[in-house]
Amino acid sequence: MKKILLTGFEPFGGERINPAVLVMERLKERTVGPYMVEGLELPTVFGKSVDRLIEAVELIEPDVVICLGQAGGRPDISFERIAINVNDARIADNEGNQPEDTPVVPGGPTAYWSTLPIKQMVARLHASGIPASVSDSAGTFVCNQLFYGLMHHIAVSGKEMRGGFVHIPYLPEQALEHKGAPSMTLDLMVAGLEQAIEILE
Amino acid sequence: MKKILLTGFEPFGGERINPAVLVMERLKERTVGPYMVEGLELPTVFGKSVDRLIEAVELIEPDVVICLGQAGGRPDISFERIAINVNDARIADNEGNQPEDTPVVPGGPTAYWSTLPIKQMVARLHASGIPASVSDSAGTFVCNQLFYGLMHHIAVSGKEMRGGFVHIPYLPEQALEHKGAPSMTLDLMVAGLEQAIEILE
Amino acid sequence: MKKILLTGFEPFGGERINPAVLVMERLKERTVGPYMVEGLELPTVFGKSVDRLIEAVELIEPDVVICLGQAGGRPDISFERIAINVNDARIADNEGNQPEDTPVVPGGPTAYWSTLPIKQMVARLHASGIPASVSDSAGTFVCNQLFYGLMHHIAVSGKEMRGGFVHIPYLPEQALEHKGAPSMTLDLMVAGLEQAIEILE
Amino acid sequence: MKKILLTGFEPFGGERINPAVLVMERLKERTVGPYMVEGLELPTVFGKSVDRLIEAVELIEPDVVICLGQAGGRPDISFERIAINVNDARIADNEGNQPEDTPVVPGGPTAYWSTLPIKQMVARLHASGIPASVSDSAGTFVCNQLFYGLMHHIAVSGKEMRGGFVHIPYLPEQALEHKGAPSMTLDLMVAGLEQAIEILE
Repeated sequence: MKKILLTGFEPFGGERINPAVLVMERLKERTVGPYMVEGLELPTVFGKSVDRLIEAVELIEPDVVICLGQAGGRPDISFERIAINVNDARIADNEGNQPEDTPVVPGGPTAYWSTLPIKQMVARLHASGIPASVSDSAGTFVCNQLFYGLMHHIAVSGKEMRGGFVHIPYLPEQALEHKGAPSMTLDLMVAGLEQAIEILE
Repeated sequence: MKKILLTGFEPFGGERINPAVLVMERLKERTVGPYMVEGLELPTVFGKSVDRLIEAVELIEPDVVICLGQAGGRPDISFERIAINVNDARIADNEGNQPEDTPVVPGGPTAYWSTLPIKQMVARLHASGIPASVSDSAGTFVCNQLFYGLMHHIAVSGKEMRGGFVHIPYLPEQALEHKGAPSMTLDLMVAGLEQAIEILE
Repeated sequence: MKKILLTGFEPFGGERINPAVLVMERLKERTVGPYMVEGLELPTVFGKSVDRLIEAVELIEPDVVICLGQAGGRPDISFERIAINVNDARIADNEGNQPEDTPVVPGGPTAYWSTLPIKQMVARLHASGIPASVSDSAGTFVCNQLFYGLMHHIAVSGKEMRGGFVHIPYLPEQALEHKGAPSMTLDLMVAGLEQAIEILE
Repeated sequence: MKKILLTGFEPFGGERINPAVLVMERLKERTVGPYMVEGLELPTVFGKSVDRLIEAVELIEPDVVICLGQAGGRPDISFERIAINVNDARIADNEGNQPEDTPVVPGGPTAYWSTLPIKQMVARLHASGIPASVSDSAGTFVCNQLFYGLMHHIAVSGKEMRGGFVHIPYLPEQALEHKGAPSMTLDLMVAGLEQAIEILE
């Protein structure tokens, strides 16, 4: 059976929960389409999150890796198009690191494309009435670093593995603390991710 | 048993569905707290919607009336504080009426307060993790007219009835058509309304 | 010559400046259309601001009173339609008062309309390319209290005076501190107010 | 004397004006800091805009190229960090082209960094009270294509030239047509660009 590795970050930026890890926990050890889902929680820390991911990738040897992150303020599930080779943090990560304009990988290429079928994933979610979009920026914080680190590892190691990053909104209970912010229920996020996985061959 | 009349508008403004009528249909003929819920669909038409509501109020004699309307673009369930005596439409209603700065009730008072416990309702929803807020404007379209018309009828008739208006966001499937708009699932809207009703004595 | 009293609030909510007082200072002691402009700075304090305004109104006996306030986050000059009889503060005023659901005037009417020609004012600003709109809510903070207090004073005293409230956005230099917030230059705000005054007979 | 080439797009997307070309016209043939400003209007057309730019670059041999584009809905002057190798248009350009997921340059690198000192430019504008930010996405329309095309030309030709892209908001008169959209005056945009140019050595 094929394997997909689904990762989620621990809470950051003062939040008590992170929907990314909750979605991952709901899907892990389940079969979705032709895939067995393996789950992994990652620290919201520059460097460490990439290291942990690569260890798990080496161990599990998944066919596909999808990393999940929270993008508070966005209204839908957004499929990231591109990872860029820069860390530029407006807030500190969970260990106090706040890099400014440093490369993810010194000497690495400027950017990597997602190798997930992001347009088809968005179309599939839309067909099911789930708000989704393609995003042209995964930011310059830990999310983008993880995404770039993943794609660089795949490129350098020559694996056939596909990879990408998906941002999810606040949960309703988080939105209470952020007046005016959109939110999405955990059930709808999980359904969205299931559908995204199902269209992978 | 006490009775609550819950109303919802038919779709308008080019939408195929209106979450207000869907929430009403999910709750009608059910018991919520000490209340039996009666449901009523209303035309999104100036004048007619008020007339139909008042007919139903006379017939059913509910203890409480809650009118629901869709406020596309808002991120949460918003409990309206005040109805104002003006119709001023930016778009036409479902029969092509587009009044500009006309009174709802000529000679009526400038405004009426909601007589629902809106602050407690918001607090109750928050305690359950449901995004909710008090809103200071129900607009100047059919929603506000219905709200004003209801409160004026209650005032003039001397009934003890309580009344108010609640705006709900787009459903997820509607938000697809409105890039960047927040949405809320029908289940969460229904849960929010149930909780709002439950705190009424 | 006719007189118009233009008021502006001192800074609040952690801001160092308030565009309302700056606009007032630019226009005071000038002639605009058929009006001599008198200027008045008001404390951002519940109660005191209304008292000071009424003192000045009694002393100056203006034909028109326009109160200005900052509405951080709004993109245009918004002409308020209605003042409502409630104080409900989310932040403390400049003396630490934070009333919750108290009336501006116990026993006063629920609301007062602006008696400025707000639609014509918006149309005039649009004709000059200045972003402007009608607003249906002046909030429930010191701005709304001042607006209600003014209109109540005019109503009770039987004066022929016209009155209203206008909200203005952040200045560009304020927007720096509020990532993503719209702003407007002082020059454009001043031009907008001049034009609004010019259409008054 | 050093030369800077400043480009602006003709109006698109139903607009009658494009602030980019107006800013360019205000600055062209003027001296700003150590630079003589050359101006160039470009068609909002995939392919053609890049071709015209490269012709002008070859002819003028500027030391710096700054391309300006309108980003309706953004509140500030945004200095783009990165150009990406994809055209993916949500609306048609001015000749009806609407490419979907095509490369700007087949076989070209995934992305190019701006070689303008974007962080210092933002800091300088902030010091003058002008809203500005770094943007991580120039989109996937004609703006991004021009930016990528420029940087690719510089890279391939081995020139020492610096280049980048700057997005500017709607003008106030444009915002009238886009309810709720932020805007910025032409004067403030021009001042912002002058300051950005002045910090270049």
